[in-house]
Amino acid sequence: MSKIKGTKAERELLKMLWHNGWATIRSAGSGSMKFPSPDLLAGKGERKLAIECKATADTSKYFEKEDIFELKEFGRMFGAEPWVALRFDREAWLFINPMDLDETEKSFSITKEKARMKGLSVEEVIR
Amino acid sequence: MSKIKGTKAERELLKMLWHNGWATIRSAGSGSMKFPSPDLLAGKGERKLAIECKATADTSKYFEKEDIFELKEFGRMFGAEPWVALRFDREAWLFINPMDLDETEKSFSITKEKARMKGLSVEEVIR
Repeated sequence: MSKIKGTKAERELLKMLWHNGWATIRSAGSGSMKFPSPDLLAGKGERKLAIECKATADTSKYFEKEDIFELKEFGRMFGAEPWVALRFDREAWLFINPMDLDETEKSFSITKEKARMKGLSVEEVIR
Repeated sequence: MSKIKGTKAERELLKMLWHNGWATIRSAGSGSMKFPSPDLLAGKGERKLAIECKATADTSKYFEKEDIFELKEFGRMFGAEPWVALRFDREAWLFINPMDLDETEKSFSITKEKARMKGLSVEEVIR
């Protein structure tokens, strides 16, 4: 995913979360520093969500193992639920529990089919 | 404060927080979107800190009223303590409770003297 397309997807989801009463910030990324950093961090009352956020035109999505490990580690340290938010072209956002990704030797992945089956809608996640 | 100097100050504080076991992200800013967004958001277990972060060469620091209102509002919605982190030249970071800022007609402000008196060190805040 291009950086511009990535930013657009993050902003779209950020806006949806705000409109549902969740205070949300978009990460500047760690730049040259090697600290983990989810794309979005959302909070409302007691619940916090650390979100890795991707849009794709493909029928499955691959993730660097490192990115998923870092998402989970950030969530554990910060005190936030780790989520992967995925949007396949012309479909609604799906929130995937990182545990539902399939692990291969070099990456994590999920097919569109499995994402539809296991994923939660925005409304279900923030309920 | 220049944007570059601001970013440098934010990164410096982010690093200190990570080194003390606080998972911290730097906000990308809201860009064209009008959502409030603190400079840093740090969490460890139950505690979360929303931090507006400034370095200054002056002997007092002024804040736009809007920035302080937004910091408090973000903290209330997200579920985070609102803090103003200030570093006067050649001094250590001081964490100021927004309630300790002085309100004038057009802004909030604090003198170096009052910041030293009321402010907490990084170690005190994250204890």
